[in-house]
Amino acid sequence: MSDTQTLIAANRERFLEELKAFLSIPSISTLSERTADVQRAAEWTADQLRAAGMTRVQIMPTAKHPVVYAEWLGAPEKPTVLIYGHYDVQPAELEAGWQSDPFTPEVRDGNLYARGASDDKGQVYANIKAVQLLMQRDGKLPVNLKFLIEGEEEIGSPNLDAFIAAHKELLRADVVVVSDTAIQSLTQPSIVYGLRGLVYLELEVRGPRQDLHSGGFGGTVHNPAQALCEIIAALRHPDGSVAVEGFYDKVRPLSAEERAAIAKTDISEDEWRKLTGAPKAWGEAGYSLRERVGARPTLEINGIWGGFTGEGSKTVLPAKATAKISCRLVPDQEPHEIEALIRAQIEKLAPPTITWELRPLNHGYPALVPLDSLAMECAVSAYERGFGARPLFLREGGSIPVVATFMQTYGAPVLLVGYGLPDDGAHGPNEKFALECLYRGIHTAAALLEALGKHAPEALRAR
Amino acid sequence: MSDTQTLIAANRERFLEELKAFLSIPSISTLSERTADVQRAAEWTADQLRAAGMTRVQIMPTAKHPVVYAEWLGAPEKPTVLIYGHYDVQPAELEAGWQSDPFTPEVRDGNLYARGASDDKGQVYANIKAVQLLMQRDGKLPVNLKFLIEGEEEIGSPNLDAFIAAHKELLRADVVVVSDTAIQSLTQPSIVYGLRGLVYLELEVRGPRQDLHSGGFGGTVHNPAQALCEIIAALRHPDGSVAVEGFYDKVRPLSAEERAAIAKTDISEDEWRKLTGAPKAWGEAGYSLRERVGARPTLEINGIWGGFTGEGSKTVLPAKATAKISCRLVPDQEPHEIEALIRAQIEKLAPPTITWELRPLNHGYPALVPLDSLAMECAVSAYERGFGARPLFLREGGSIPVVATFMQTYGAPVLLVGYGLPDDGAHGPNEKFALECLYRGIHTAAALLEALGKHAPEALRAR
Repeated sequence: MSDTQTLIAANRERFLEELKAFLSIPSISTLSERTADVQRAAEWTADQLRAAGMTRVQIMPTAKHPVVYAEWLGAPEKPTVLIYGHYDVQPAELEAGWQSDPFTPEVRDGNLYARGASDDKGQVYANIKAVQLLMQRDGKLPVNLKFLIEGEEEIGSPNLDAFIAAHKELLRADVVVVSDTAIQSLTQPSIVYGLRGLVYLELEVRGPRQDLHSGGFGGTVHNPAQALCEIIAALRHPDGSVAVEGFYDKVRPLSAEERAAIAKTDISEDEWRKLTGAPKAWGEAGYSLRERVGARPTLEINGIWGGFTGEGSKTVLPAKATAKISCRLVPDQEPHEIEALIRAQIEKLAPPTITWELRPLNHGYPALVPLDSLAMECAVSAYERGFGARPLFLREGGSIPVVATFMQTYGAPVLLVGYGLPDDGAHGPNEKFALECLYRGIHTAAALLEALGKHAPEALRAR
Repeated sequence: MSDTQTLIAANRERFLEELKAFLSIPSISTLSERTADVQRAAEWTADQLRAAGMTRVQIMPTAKHPVVYAEWLGAPEKPTVLIYGHYDVQPAELEAGWQSDPFTPEVRDGNLYARGASDDKGQVYANIKAVQLLMQRDGKLPVNLKFLIEGEEEIGSPNLDAFIAAHKELLRADVVVVSDTAIQSLTQPSIVYGLRGLVYLELEVRGPRQDLHSGGFGGTVHNPAQALCEIIAALRHPDGSVAVEGFYDKVRPLSAEERAAIAKTDISEDEWRKLTGAPKAWGEAGYSLRERVGARPTLEINGIWGGFTGEGSKTVLPAKATAKISCRLVPDQEPHEIEALIRAQIEKLAPPTITWELRPLNHGYPALVPLDSLAMECAVSAYERGFGARPLFLREGGSIPVVATFMQTYGAPVLLVGYGLPDDGAHGPNEKFALECLYRGIHTAAALLEALGKHAPEALRAR
């Protein structure tokens, strides 16, 4: 065992209890009634960063939820690393199928179950503990370090780009580390190099002034729930592709090399069925499952509601119906342009018997990180130390819009060094984080800082 | 003023206060948490029937909500009349657009606003008060009278047919009177002679085992909300007709005479737009608005839900999505057969990428009441006395399944003598009952019993 591993082993109990405390704060950024909890999670994060030995720890306001900033700049000749993560979480309702309360963390079979366990509190916590261990062991860090832990990732980071623009010098770094992704398995780590962008919209279809008696008016009023279904159904071609004119125009075609690389990580339909529980795979014809998730754009209905949704029967003709619709985007799709294309398509589809409104909720850019950098080599070696295997490279289906922002703002390499697993259930019920991922994650995070500290800043910045 | 009118005028205040008490009981039959309130409304109804002078007043249990039965059989040579109504109401949520609490009755501009004001508590109450006035004035009634006031009409009367079959002799009558419909206007009464049947279904579409991250799995799982929309959209042809194979097979075609009669009561698209607030009329090509509502079957989405329906954005791929779907049926459509046709259609439409379940919630038969009976003449004369004008005859869009049951069980004429108005907002927010309808309704109900009492039982039973 390395000295880092010894330190981790000695502190397992404490790490688990501390992380449980973090996870018991319902910092759901999308729900306004959780604003105080979001603030509480920011304060908890700041306290932990102070305890780890970081200086100038600050909770900095934005238009909505605050950013936690921390720095330690005690290594003048060394590179500066910025670690990004988020302390906010997705909503979670016990009734959605949770086996234990989403905000009362519980360990079962070596996994810690709670909303945010994997996405992203567990991963943020692993990074903070890595810093604390290095500091305790050496009294200093191998690099200059900054933390930017935000509270709005799960609502699309609406204020983060402006925050980074306003604090460009404060946040400047030679390398950015993001821990908010999953590896293939405990024995096969992987590094995400492609992330999708996002545009999230809400479509409301309105018919009559108010809910009507379906017997008195049905058959003469275009039912808004029916009309919404008709519009949604028409947004997709029978072959599974998105039926929005121009949607694929800016999608970079996959090269033969990329397809070959993705094929190495592909999943069989059988494995996929076990993972999801769905009866049969589905999707855009002509693309493998991994290509559909990582390299192709999608359009999904995230929620739909209208009319009577209670127990039993109410013979009502609803006044309106609404759907939440989001698209995952790939390079070089532009989220605002995709919103405009969808708006134009609905304009064409919507009949004169209803009115409608399309409300944009958020926008994020896709990103592709170059693989051939010295910084990426450090990430590879860190995984080799933490997980004992050489990582694969993956394009992922998720979105972390700030990655594109960091690349554009600093031209710095961004390393997506994640510690989650594919079946962690992020955003769904029974989200979990394997305790083994936590401990190996701390080890890997420490190893990464040590590896980066061996190089000169300008060497790391160069591609 | 007739003596009945004088008595009504003298009791206006009391009538209003009593009806307000009835309306303040949230007897929502579809919600299990309202069971005690439903029971309370039954007891209130029974007390009122006792106060009106009815004998053998009983609250009789069914498998779910009880039936209130009452009788007065003190006129051996006279015909026996059964008055049917219901004391249960539809759900009502203040947030659906109510200007005042749905269970805190409030008078505004001569209208009493509350859930159930028109459908059907106000109309039941008018009948009870008519009996009370006759009893106070004459010490007896002009006919033998029975009341059957049920508590499950708004959930499709699931136990009523069995109750009637089990108490066939107890309920036997020469004429059945139902007050649960609307007239054209205060100056133009009307009698409904056609009612639609109903089949109410719940369609659940399931995909993955649990909600998934839309970035991690979107594009490879057939989104159940999307699939539900695709199925619903395919249940309708572009011309507005229902795309369920065999759906129209048993629909009786409209005769030229019927179309001419319906044309007299038709509504212009302009009036219709004012009434509904919808931007444009809609419906089955080749049929007028009134024909679509009264004489043609429909298929409506009463509710739809799935995935994240809260504030803001949650990038989830829902595990399931559900819709409440109901059809209004016309003679000679059979509700169980229509359910089977819809099931067969969904079987054809549903792709192998999802699973689904179609749950029947209730079934009701359509009915057409013959116009050429002595009993119907009595109803016409009663409206002439109560509202001062000769009523028109209408086919209505709503459903009162028990009408078909009464016709089949007793072969007795069923009179749909209603006192609501078309804009009462039954089932929607701000349901109201015009106080003038209440007072004229009491007058009409009393006049109807007097008119029926002038005939021999066998003369009324004959068509």
